[in-house]
Amino acid sequence: MTDSYNIAVAGATGAVGTVMLKLLQEREFPVASLRPLASERSAGQTVEFGGEELEVQELTADSFQGIDIALFSAGGDRSKQFAPAAVTAGAVVVDNSGAFRMDPNVPLVVPEVNPEDLKWHEGIIANPNCSTIQMVVPLKPIYDAVGIERIVVTTFQSVSGTGNRAIEELFNQTEAVIESGEGEVQKDVYPHQIAFNILPHIDYFHDNGYTNEEMKMINETRKIFGDPELRVTATCTRVPVFSAHSESVNIQTSRPVSVDEVRRLLLATPGIALVDDPGADEYPMPLMAEGKDEVFVGRIRKDYSAENSLNFWMVSDNLRKGAATNAVQIAELLIREELLQ
Amino acid sequence: MTDSYNIAVAGATGAVGTVMLKLLQEREFPVASLRPLASERSAGQTVEFGGEELEVQELTADSFQGIDIALFSAGGDRSKQFAPAAVTAGAVVVDNSGAFRMDPNVPLVVPEVNPEDLKWHEGIIANPNCSTIQMVVPLKPIYDAVGIERIVVTTFQSVSGTGNRAIEELFNQTEAVIESGEGEVQKDVYPHQIAFNILPHIDYFHDNGYTNEEMKMINETRKIFGDPELRVTATCTRVPVFSAHSESVNIQTSRPVSVDEVRRLLLATPGIALVDDPGADEYPMPLMAEGKDEVFVGRIRKDYSAENSLNFWMVSDNLRKGAATNAVQIAELLIREELLQ
Repeated sequence: MTDSYNIAVAGATGAVGTVMLKLLQEREFPVASLRPLASERSAGQTVEFGGEELEVQELTADSFQGIDIALFSAGGDRSKQFAPAAVTAGAVVVDNSGAFRMDPNVPLVVPEVNPEDLKWHEGIIANPNCSTIQMVVPLKPIYDAVGIERIVVTTFQSVSGTGNRAIEELFNQTEAVIESGEGEVQKDVYPHQIAFNILPHIDYFHDNGYTNEEMKMINETRKIFGDPELRVTATCTRVPVFSAHSESVNIQTSRPVSVDEVRRLLLATPGIALVDDPGADEYPMPLMAEGKDEVFVGRIRKDYSAENSLNFWMVSDNLRKGAATNAVQIAELLIREELLQ
Repeated sequence: MTDSYNIAVAGATGAVGTVMLKLLQEREFPVASLRPLASERSAGQTVEFGGEELEVQELTADSFQGIDIALFSAGGDRSKQFAPAAVTAGAVVVDNSGAFRMDPNVPLVVPEVNPEDLKWHEGIIANPNCSTIQMVVPLKPIYDAVGIERIVVTTFQSVSGTGNRAIEELFNQTEAVIESGEGEVQKDVYPHQIAFNILPHIDYFHDNGYTNEEMKMINETRKIFGDPELRVTATCTRVPVFSAHSESVNIQTSRPVSVDEVRRLLLATPGIALVDDPGADEYPMPLMAEGKDEVFVGRIRKDYSAENSLNFWMVSDNLRKGAATNAVQIAELLIREELLQ
């Protein structure tokens, strides 16, 4: 006999929420009932789940009666407002927003990396930022086996990370440029044209000149590895790609390590697809990763500019492993480890 | 009285050659006569110059009689084949290909960076690779004033760097995806779809896992700075942008330097546009740099992950400062310094 669970998805009509619903079905998650929740604007729409059309209900503090697990991906403000109510109602919350990630009482979990942190949850588990997740999965086996002293990362992030409106904006701007040549395009989501352009700007700017996205990568990586002194720097950019983020990652390890040893470590790690045969034009790309759950890793090579240094290229679907897949994996682990309160 | 010169442009119908012709006019270069040259395939076409239609002649060893300066941008093989003939005929060659860049008898020159190297030319001067030029211009004043120990760069390179056929390929693939959804697109220039995708692959792969483009950035930077031990590593990618390359650049300096001091150094350097007001959403982007001659620099901030380290974001039009502008500036300097043989 398998138990089954009452699941709520807050933000069920959003880019990530849509994938969460799809994944719960794909992965045959033991769902007793599914309650799709969204803002007032989207309430009343229907979503398909398990062959049924379910009406989306408005997300309120009263939405969580009888819910065992609530997956939140409705933005940080709504998580702050409603996740505590879900916990009070008896649910365990897996929150995909930035609301609780750096809260010392909330574990920040990537199941392949720090599953042990799930044990000390108090009702809320935070899902890390998409760009952080896809970096820590391949770095973890190296961190454990060799030690990592420093990480320098540059990201190429797709518009789906911003949500459905950004996907439309890239499509519409691209169409306008292709059809009518270059002129002014409509801009609603991003401050500058994203079609055929690169924006070195994700989330708001801190006083130190870093974006909040860059600070997330720095701080979340430290928290996930349990290494508050880990040296990380990041430059995050938005690129005209619909889905899947790419990352150019440079690391300095604690001792010499060969490319072959790194390959062996990655091949032995679940959740990673090694695609590294440049002579055959095989390397990770967004179009390869879209719709997949793995982190694709390639272009692994020694960096001769510093001792014990390596370069990597890592690509993953930000809506899946970067968000929905990781959240559903956390929910699966909560069940397997009997960590539902 | 100003002297004027007989100029040949080899590759006059290509992406860079077209811009060379435009720049010679824009900058009021003292042209006595202009001889457009191209492969047999393009010979017979006409190009506009100084209000006249000029017929493109086939590039051969006999093309250079009476020529004072020959600007080459017709690919490395044609440079190797015909540049020596141009020199024998009495011309000075400014070569935009990779053919002679690492030849110890050929200076590799960025006029803002190492104009003194022009003095020892023996008939051929090499124009550096586009991605190298736009990095060394902003790094030079820091290199001189503070010292640079190490450079870690990731590039976002536009398709115009590959040439006119690649511009068409990005346009056509994009149109196909926009009009008919995602399916197989026609691929002629790149091994994978470039529309809405990122390719971590420019030029061929070396046995060490680096692309030739990455090795160019490493080796050319060392040669231009006259610092064969300078520590540089690079990851080069092709992005779905029509023109202008972007670069995420991390450096370690030889002594502590503040962001303000770096800003002052850059503001005092010709050829640089400092665009660094993130609070007002102002930072360099390809669409800002397209059609301009400056290297746009912004997102300057301390990298707290290592001593004396800084992050930058640098964008420049690869067809202009990255190629044609730099070549024409070299030609101007040859005249000003009386270095035409």
